[in-house]
Amino acid sequence: MEALKNKILREGEAIGTEIVKVDGFLNHQIDVAFVEELGREFKARFAGEEVTKVLTVEASGILVAAMAAREFGYVPLVFAKKTAPSTMNGEFYGADVRSFTKGTVSNIRVAKKYLNPGDRVLIIDDFLAHGEAAVGLVSLVEQAGASVVGIGAVIEKEFQGGSRRLKEKGYRVESLAVIREIKDGSITFK
Amino acid sequence: MEALKNKILREGEAIGTEIVKVDGFLNHQIDVAFVEELGREFKARFAGEEVTKVLTVEASGILVAAMAAREFGYVPLVFAKKTAPSTMNGEFYGADVRSFTKGTVSNIRVAKKYLNPGDRVLIIDDFLAHGEAAVGLVSLVEQAGASVVGIGAVIEKEFQGGSRRLKEKGYRVESLAVIREIKDGSITFK
Repeated sequence: MEALKNKILREGEAIGTEIVKVDGFLNHQIDVAFVEELGREFKARFAGEEVTKVLTVEASGILVAAMAAREFGYVPLVFAKKTAPSTMNGEFYGADVRSFTKGTVSNIRVAKKYLNPGDRVLIIDDFLAHGEAAVGLVSLVEQAGASVVGIGAVIEKEFQGGSRRLKEKGYRVESLAVIREIKDGSITFK
Repeated sequence: MEALKNKILREGEAIGTEIVKVDGFLNHQIDVAFVEELGREFKARFAGEEVTKVLTVEASGILVAAMAAREFGYVPLVFAKKTAPSTMNGEFYGADVRSFTKGTVSNIRVAKKYLNPGDRVLIIDDFLAHGEAAVGLVSLVEQAGASVVGIGAVIEKEFQGGSRRLKEKGYRVESLAVIREIKDGSITFK
Protein backbone atom coordinates (compact mmCIF):
# COMPACT_ATOMS: atom_id res chain seq x y z
CA MET A 1 0.00 0.00 0.00
CA GLU A 2 1.87 3.02 -1.33
CA ALA A 3 0.17 5.61 0.89
CA LEU A 4 1.23 3.62 3.95
CA LYS A 5 4.83 3.19 2.82
CA ASN A 6 5.04 6.92 2.13
CA LYS A 7 3.59 7.75 5.52
CA ILE A 8 6.07 5.42 7.25
CA LEU A 9 8.97 7.02 5.38
CA ARG A 10 7.72 10.53 6.10
CA GLU A 11 6.58 10.15 9.71
CA GLY A 12 8.11 6.92 10.99
CA GLU A 13 11.39 6.57 12.83
CA ALA A 14 13.90 3.77 12.34
CA ILE A 15 15.58 2.72 15.60
CA GLY A 16 18.53 0.34 15.48
CA THR A 17 17.93 -2.64 13.19
CA GLU A 18 14.71 -3.96 14.74
CA ILE A 19 12.29 -1.13 15.45
CA VAL A 20 10.23 1.23 13.36
CA LYS A 21 8.32 3.70 15.44
CA VAL A 22 5.01 4.95 14.06
CA ASP A 23 3.81 6.72 17.18
CA GLY A 24 2.79 9.75 15.17
CA PHE A 25 -0.10 8.14 13.30
CA LEU A 26 -0.71 4.57 14.51
CA ASN A 27 0.57 3.68 17.95
CA HIS A 28 0.26 6.63 20.29
CA GLN A 29 -1.17 9.52 18.33
CA ILE A 30 -3.60 8.15 15.75
CA ASP A 31 -4.64 9.54 12.38
CA VAL A 32 -8.18 8.16 12.39
CA ALA A 33 -8.94 8.99 8.74
CA PHE A 34 -5.82 7.13 7.68
CA VAL A 35 -6.72 4.10 9.79
CA GLU A 36 -10.10 4.04 8.05
CA GLU A 37 -8.18 3.72 4.77
CA LEU A 38 -6.24 0.79 6.24
CA GLY A 39 -9.57 -0.88 7.07
CA ARG A 40 -10.69 -0.49 3.46
CA GLU A 41 -7.40 -1.93 2.24
CA PHE A 42 -7.83 -5.04 4.40
CA LYS A 43 -11.29 -5.47 2.90
CA ALA A 44 -9.76 -5.28 -0.57
CA ARG A 45 -7.04 -7.80 0.32
CA PHE A 46 -9.52 -10.30 1.75
CA ALA A 47 -12.29 -9.51 -0.76
CA GLY A 48 -14.64 -12.40 -1.34
CA GLU A 49 -13.83 -14.04 1.99
CA GLU A 50 -16.63 -14.68 4.40
CA VAL A 51 -15.71 -13.15 7.76
CA THR A 52 -17.97 -13.47 10.81
CA LYS A 53 -15.61 -11.90 13.36
CA VAL A 54 -12.45 -9.83 13.54
CA LEU A 55 -10.00 -10.63 16.33
CA THR A 56 -7.10 -8.52 17.63
CA VAL A 57 -5.22 -8.00 20.88
CA GLU A 58 -5.21 -4.84 22.97
CA ALA A 59 -4.21 -2.09 22.65
CA SER A 60 -2.92 -0.49 19.48
CA GLY A 61 -4.53 -3.01 17.12
CA ILE A 62 -8.06 -2.18 18.28
CA LEU A 63 -8.84 0.74 15.98
CA VAL A 64 -7.47 -0.77 12.78
CA ALA A 65 -9.26 -4.03 13.55
CA ALA A 66 -12.49 -2.09 14.17
CA MET A 67 -12.17 -0.33 10.83
CA ALA A 68 -11.68 -3.70 9.14
CA ALA A 69 -14.73 -5.13 10.97
CA ARG A 70 -16.77 -2.21 9.65
CA GLU A 71 -15.74 -2.96 6.07
CA PHE A 72 -16.84 -6.59 6.47
CA GLY A 73 -20.38 -5.46 7.25
CA TYR A 74 -19.89 -4.48 10.89
CA VAL A 75 -19.12 -7.98 12.10
CA PRO A 76 -18.27 -8.11 15.81
CA LEU A 77 -14.74 -7.14 16.79
CA VAL A 78 -13.22 -9.12 19.66
CA PHE A 79 -10.03 -8.01 21.31
CA ALA A 80 -8.01 -10.40 23.45
CA LYS A 81 -7.01 -9.02 26.83
CA LYS A 82 -3.47 -9.01 28.16
CA THR A 83 -4.44 -8.93 31.80
CA ALA A 84 -7.27 -10.67 33.59
CA PRO A 85 -9.59 -7.96 34.92
CA SER A 86 -11.75 -8.80 37.90
CA THR A 87 -14.76 -8.53 35.60
CA MET A 88 -13.55 -11.48 33.49
CA ASN A 89 -15.18 -14.35 35.25
CA GLY A 90 -16.14 -17.64 33.74
CA GLU A 91 -14.42 -19.52 31.03
CA PHE A 92 -11.82 -18.23 28.62
CA TYR A 93 -9.29 -19.40 26.05
CA GLY A 94 -5.70 -18.38 26.77
CA ALA A 95 -2.34 -18.32 24.97
CA ASP A 96 1.10 -17.16 26.08
CA VAL A 97 2.58 -14.39 23.98
CA ARG A 98 6.12 -13.15 24.29
CA SER A 99 6.81 -9.50 23.45
CA PHE A 100 10.34 -9.02 22.14
CA THR A 101 9.96 -5.23 22.31
CA LYS A 102 8.84 -5.19 25.93
CA GLY A 103 10.70 -8.28 27.09
CA THR A 104 7.60 -9.72 28.74
CA VAL A 105 5.27 -12.72 28.40
CA SER A 106 1.53 -12.15 28.64
CA ASN A 107 -1.25 -14.67 28.73
CA ILE A 108 -3.76 -13.25 26.27
CA ARG A 109 -7.36 -14.25 26.84
CA VAL A 110 -10.72 -14.29 25.16
CA ALA A 111 -13.94 -15.23 26.94
CA LYS A 112 -15.22 -18.45 25.42
CA LYS A 113 -18.60 -17.01 24.55
CA TYR A 114 -17.09 -14.57 22.05
CA LEU A 115 -15.46 -17.18 19.80
CA ASN A 116 -17.64 -20.01 18.56
CA PRO A 117 -17.32 -23.09 16.37
CA GLY A 118 -18.30 -22.04 12.87
CA ASP A 119 -16.89 -18.52 13.26
CA ARG A 120 -14.70 -17.43 10.36
CA VAL A 121 -12.19 -15.13 12.00
CA LEU A 122 -9.98 -12.50 10.42
CA ILE A 123 -7.02 -11.69 12.69
CA ILE A 124 -5.81 -8.09 12.43
CA ASP A 125 -2.91 -6.41 14.20
CA ASP A 126 -0.79 -3.32 13.76
CA PHE A 127 2.58 -5.12 13.59
CA LEU A 128 3.70 -8.53 12.44
CA ALA A 129 7.24 -9.11 13.70
CA HIS A 130 8.26 -12.50 15.15
CA GLY A 131 4.65 -13.58 14.89
CA GLU A 132 4.17 -14.29 18.59
CA ALA A 133 0.93 -12.33 18.93
CA ALA A 134 -0.50 -13.73 15.69
CA VAL A 135 0.33 -17.32 16.67
CA GLY A 136 -1.35 -16.69 20.04
CA LEU A 137 -4.45 -15.28 18.37
CA VAL A 138 -4.57 -18.23 15.94
CA SER A 139 -4.43 -20.54 18.93
CA LEU A 140 -7.42 -18.80 20.58
CA VAL A 141 -9.45 -19.18 17.38
CA GLU A 142 -8.59 -22.86 17.03
CA GLN A 143 -9.23 -23.65 20.69
CA ALA A 144 -12.76 -22.38 19.97
CA GLY A 145 -13.13 -24.71 16.99
CA ALA A 146 -13.47 -21.68 14.73
CA SER A 147 -11.45 -21.15 11.55
CA VAL A 148 -8.84 -18.56 10.64
CA VAL A 149 -9.62 -16.70 7.40
CA GLY A 150 -6.22 -15.05 7.48
CA ILE A 151 -3.91 -12.70 9.29
CA GLY A 152 -3.72 -9.04 8.31
CA ALA A 153 -0.96 -6.78 9.57
CA VAL A 154 -0.46 -3.10 8.92
CA ILE A 155 3.34 -3.30 9.07
CA GLU A 156 5.33 -6.50 8.66
CA LYS A 157 8.99 -6.71 9.58
CA GLU A 158 9.79 -9.55 7.19
CA PHE A 159 13.29 -10.16 8.59
CA GLN A 160 11.83 -11.15 11.98
CA GLY A 161 10.21 -14.20 10.41
CA GLY A 162 6.64 -14.07 11.73
CA SER A 163 5.06 -14.08 8.30
CA ARG A 164 7.13 -17.04 7.10
CA ARG A 165 6.29 -18.95 10.27
CA LEU A 166 2.54 -18.40 9.74
CA LYS A 167 2.61 -19.17 6.01
CA GLU A 168 4.49 -22.41 6.66
CA LYS A 169 1.60 -23.44 8.88
CA GLY A 170 -0.76 -22.78 5.99
CA TYR A 171 -2.24 -19.44 7.02
CA ARG A 172 -2.82 -16.62 4.60
CA VAL A 173 -0.96 -13.45 5.59
CA GLU A 174 -1.59 -10.01 4.13
CA SER A 175 0.64 -7.14 5.25
CA LEU A 176 -0.02 -3.63 4.00
CA ALA A 177 3.64 -2.64 4.14
CA VAL A 178 6.49 -5.16 4.27
CA ILE A 179 9.82 -3.95 5.66
CA ARG A 180 12.87 -5.84 4.44
CA GLU A 181 15.50 -3.99 6.45
CA ILE A 182 16.01 -1.30 9.06
CA LYS A 183 19.54 0.02 9.06
CA ASP A 184 21.41 3.26 9.72
CA GLY A 185 18.17 5.11 10.38
CA SER A 186 16.57 4.12 7.10
CA ILE A 187 13.81 1.73 6.16
CA THR A 188 13.82 -0.50 3.07
CA PHE A 189 10.56 -1.98 1.86
CA LYS A 190 10.19 -5.25 -0.02
CA MET B 1 -28.77 8.38 25.57
CA GLU B 2 -31.74 6.01 25.48
CA ALA B 3 -30.24 3.54 22.99
CA LEU B 4 -27.25 3.09 25.29
CA LYS B 5 -29.33 2.62 28.43
CA ASN B 6 -31.44 0.02 26.63
CA LYS B 7 -28.34 -1.77 25.40
CA ILE B 8 -26.86 -1.82 28.91
CA LEU B 9 -30.10 -3.22 30.34
CA ARG B 10 -30.40 -5.80 27.56
CA GLU B 11 -26.77 -6.92 27.25
CA GLY B 12 -24.97 -5.68 30.36
CA GLU B 13 -24.45 -7.61 33.56
CA ALA B 14 -24.67 -6.17 37.07
CA ILE B 15 -22.09 -7.67 39.43
CA GLY B 16 -22.32 -6.91 43.13
CA THR B 17 -22.90 -3.22 43.86
CA GLU B 18 -19.93 -1.75 41.99
CA ILE B 19 -19.54 -3.35 38.58
CA VAL B 20 -21.51 -3.32 35.37
CA LYS B 21 -20.01 -5.55 32.73
CA VAL B 22 -20.51 -4.53 29.11
CA ASP B 23 -18.09 -7.01 27.57
CA GLY B 24 -20.61 -7.95 24.89
CA PHE B 25 -20.54 -4.63 23.02
CA LEU B 26 -17.93 -2.26 24.46
CA ASN B 27 -15.10 -3.82 26.44
CA HIS B 28 -14.14 -7.17 24.97
CA GLN B 29 -16.43 -7.86 22.04
CA ILE B 30 -17.22 -4.52 20.36
CA ASP B 31 -20.26 -3.49 18.35
CA VAL B 32 -18.47 -1.07 16.02
CA ALA B 33 -21.62 0.44 14.50
CA PHE B 34 -22.92 1.21 17.97
CA VAL B 35 -19.63 2.82 19.01
CA GLU B 36 -19.90 5.05 15.94
CA GLU B 37 -23.26 6.22 17.32
CA LEU B 38 -21.56 6.97 20.65
CA GLY B 39 -19.03 9.14 18.78
CA ARG B 40 -21.87 11.11 17.18
CA GLU B 41 -23.52 11.56 20.56
CA PHE B 42 -20.30 13.02 22.04
CA LYS B 43 -20.18 15.45 19.13
CA ALA B 44 -23.78 16.49 19.90
CA ARG B 45 -23.01 16.91 23.61
CA PHE B 46 -19.95 19.07 22.95
CA ALA B 47 -21.41 20.81 19.87
CA GLY B 48 -19.96 24.25 19.28
CA GLU B 49 -16.77 23.50 21.20
CA GLU B 50 -13.47 23.85 19.44
CA VAL B 51 -11.54 20.60 19.87
CA THR B 52 -8.02 20.16 18.48
CA LYS B 53 -7.29 16.75 20.00
CA VAL B 54 -9.05 13.84 21.67
CA LEU B 55 -7.24 12.09 24.52
CA THR B 56 -7.96 8.71 26.08
CA VAL B 57 -6.07 5.93 27.81
CA GLU B 58 -5.52 2.41 26.48
CA ALA B 59 -7.18 0.07 25.88
CA SER B 60 -10.96 -0.03 25.79
CA GLY B 61 -11.43 3.73 25.39
CA ILE B 62 -9.52 3.85 22.11
CA LEU B 63 -12.33 3.07 19.68
CA VAL B 64 -14.96 5.34 21.20
CA ALA B 65 -12.40 8.15 21.44
CA ALA B 66 -11.48 7.59 17.78
CA MET B 67 -15.12 7.79 16.73
CA ALA B 68 -15.44 11.08 18.65
CA ALA B 69 -12.24 12.41 17.01
CA ARG B 70 -13.77 11.62 13.64
CA GLU B 71 -16.89 13.62 14.45
CA PHE B 72 -14.77 16.64 15.40
CA GLY B 73 -13.27 16.73 11.90
CA TYR B 74 -10.73 13.94 12.27
CA VAL B 75 -8.62 15.71 14.86
CA PRO B 76 -5.71 13.61 16.12
CA LEU B 77 -6.50 11.01 18.76
CA VAL B 78 -3.84 10.48 21.41
CA PHE B 79 -3.99 7.55 23.78
CA ALA B 80 -1.97 7.53 26.98
CA LYS B 81 0.04 4.36 27.55
CA LYS B 82 -0.10 2.32 30.73
CA THR B 83 3.32 0.76 30.33
CA ALA B 84 6.52 2.30 29.02
CA PRO B 85 7.41 0.42 25.82
CA SER B 86 11.04 0.38 24.78
CA THR B 87 10.05 2.52 21.80
CA MET B 88 8.97 5.38 24.09
CA ASN B 89 12.15 7.30 24.35
CA GLY B 90 12.49 10.99 25.04
CA GLU B 91 10.27 13.16 27.11
CA PHE B 92 6.81 12.40 28.36
CA TYR B 93 4.16 13.63 30.78
CA GLY B 94 3.11 11.10 33.41
CA ALA B 95 0.38 10.68 36.01
CA ASP B 96 -0.34 7.90 38.49
CA VAL B 97 -3.74 6.27 38.09
CA ARG B 98 -5.23 3.79 40.51
CA SER B 99 -7.58 1.14 39.15
CA PHE B 100 -10.14 0.08 41.74
CA THR B 101 -11.33 -2.77 39.51
CA LYS B 102 -7.86 -4.22 38.99
CA GLY B 103 -6.33 -3.15 42.31
CA THR B 104 -3.27 -1.70 40.58
CA VAL B 105 -1.57 1.68 40.09
CA SER B 106 -0.27 2.57 36.62
CA ASN B 107 1.79 5.52 35.57
CA ILE B 108 0.02 6.66 32.40
CA ARG B 109 2.17 8.52 29.90
CA VAL B 110 1.96 10.72 26.86
CA ALA B 111 4.97 11.76 24.82
CA LYS B 112 5.38 15.52 25.17
CA LYS B 113 5.28 16.15 21.46
CA TYR B 114 1.67 14.95 21.18
CA LEU B 115 0.18 17.47 23.62
CA ASN B 116 0.98 21.13 23.05
CA PRO B 117 0.19 24.48 24.62
CA GLY B 118 -2.84 25.83 22.79
CA ASP B 119 -4.37 22.39 22.27
CA ARG B 120 -8.03 22.18 23.23
CA VAL B 121 -8.41 18.61 24.40
CA LEU B 122 -11.55 16.54 24.76
CA ILE B 123 -10.99 13.62 27.13
CA ILE B 124 -13.02 10.51 26.30
CA ASP B 125 -13.19 7.21 28.15
CA ASP B 126 -15.51 4.24 28.33
CA PHE B 127 -16.15 4.40 32.09
CA LEU B 128 -16.22 7.18 34.64
CA ALA B 129 -16.17 5.63 38.09
CA HIS B 130 -14.01 7.09 40.87
CA GLY B 131 -12.53 9.46 38.32
CA GLU B 132 -8.94 8.31 38.74
CA ALA B 133 -8.23 7.87 35.01
CA ALA B 134 -9.95 11.14 34.10
CA VAL B 135 -8.03 13.08 36.76
CA GLY B 136 -4.80 11.55 35.43
CA LEU B 137 -5.67 12.50 31.85
CA VAL B 138 -6.56 16.06 32.96
CA SER B 139 -3.17 16.26 34.63
CA LEU B 140 -1.38 15.22 31.41
CA VAL B 141 -3.25 17.94 29.47
CA GLU B 142 -2.43 20.61 32.02
CA GLN B 143 1.21 19.59 32.32
CA ALA B 144 1.38 20.35 28.59
CA GLY B 145 -0.13 23.81 29.09
CA ALA B 146 -3.11 22.75 26.97
CA SER B 147 -6.72 23.18 28.02
CA VAL B 148 -9.43 20.65 28.82
CA VAL B 149 -12.62 21.17 26.81
CA GLY B 150 -14.40 18.56 28.89
CA ILE B 151 -14.59 14.93 29.88
CA GLY B 152 -16.91 12.56 28.06
CA ALA B 153 -17.69 9.09 29.40
CA VAL B 154 -19.83 6.39 27.89
CA ILE B 155 -20.98 5.00 31.25
CA GLU B 156 -20.81 6.91 34.52
CA LYS B 157 -21.24 5.19 37.86
CA GLU B 158 -22.46 8.28 39.68
CA PHE B 159 -22.27 6.71 43.14
CA GLN B 160 -18.49 6.30 42.84
CA GLY B 161 -18.06 10.07 42.83
CA GLY B 162 -15.73 10.68 39.87
CA SER B 163 -18.09 13.03 38.09
CA ARG B 164 -18.70 15.13 41.23
CA ARG B 165 -14.98 15.33 41.87
CA LEU B 166 -14.31 16.60 38.33
CA LYS B 167 -17.22 19.06 38.31
CA GLU B 168 -16.08 20.50 41.66
CA LYS B 169 -12.77 21.29 40.00
CA GLY B 170 -14.64 23.17 37.28
CA TYR B 171 -14.54 20.63 34.44
CA ARG B 172 -17.46 19.92 32.20
CA VAL B 173 -18.51 16.25 32.31
CA GLU B 174 -20.86 14.58 29.83
CA SER B 175 -21.80 10.95 30.42
CA LEU B 176 -23.98 9.15 27.92
CA ALA B 177 -25.54 6.87 30.55
CA VAL B 178 -25.47 7.65 34.28
CA ILE B 179 -25.94 4.75 36.67
CA ARG B 180 -27.31 5.64 40.07
CA GLU B 181 -27.28 2.21 41.64
CA ILE B 182 -26.25 -1.40 41.01
CA LYS B 183 -28.03 -3.78 43.37
CA ASP B 184 -29.36 -7.34 43.40
CA GLY B 185 -28.38 -7.84 39.77
CA SER B 186 -30.22 -4.79 38.52
CA ILE B 187 -29.11 -1.39 37.26
CA THR B 188 -30.89 1.87 38.00
CA PHE B 189 -30.18 4.89 35.82
CA LYS B 190 -30.41 8.48 36.97
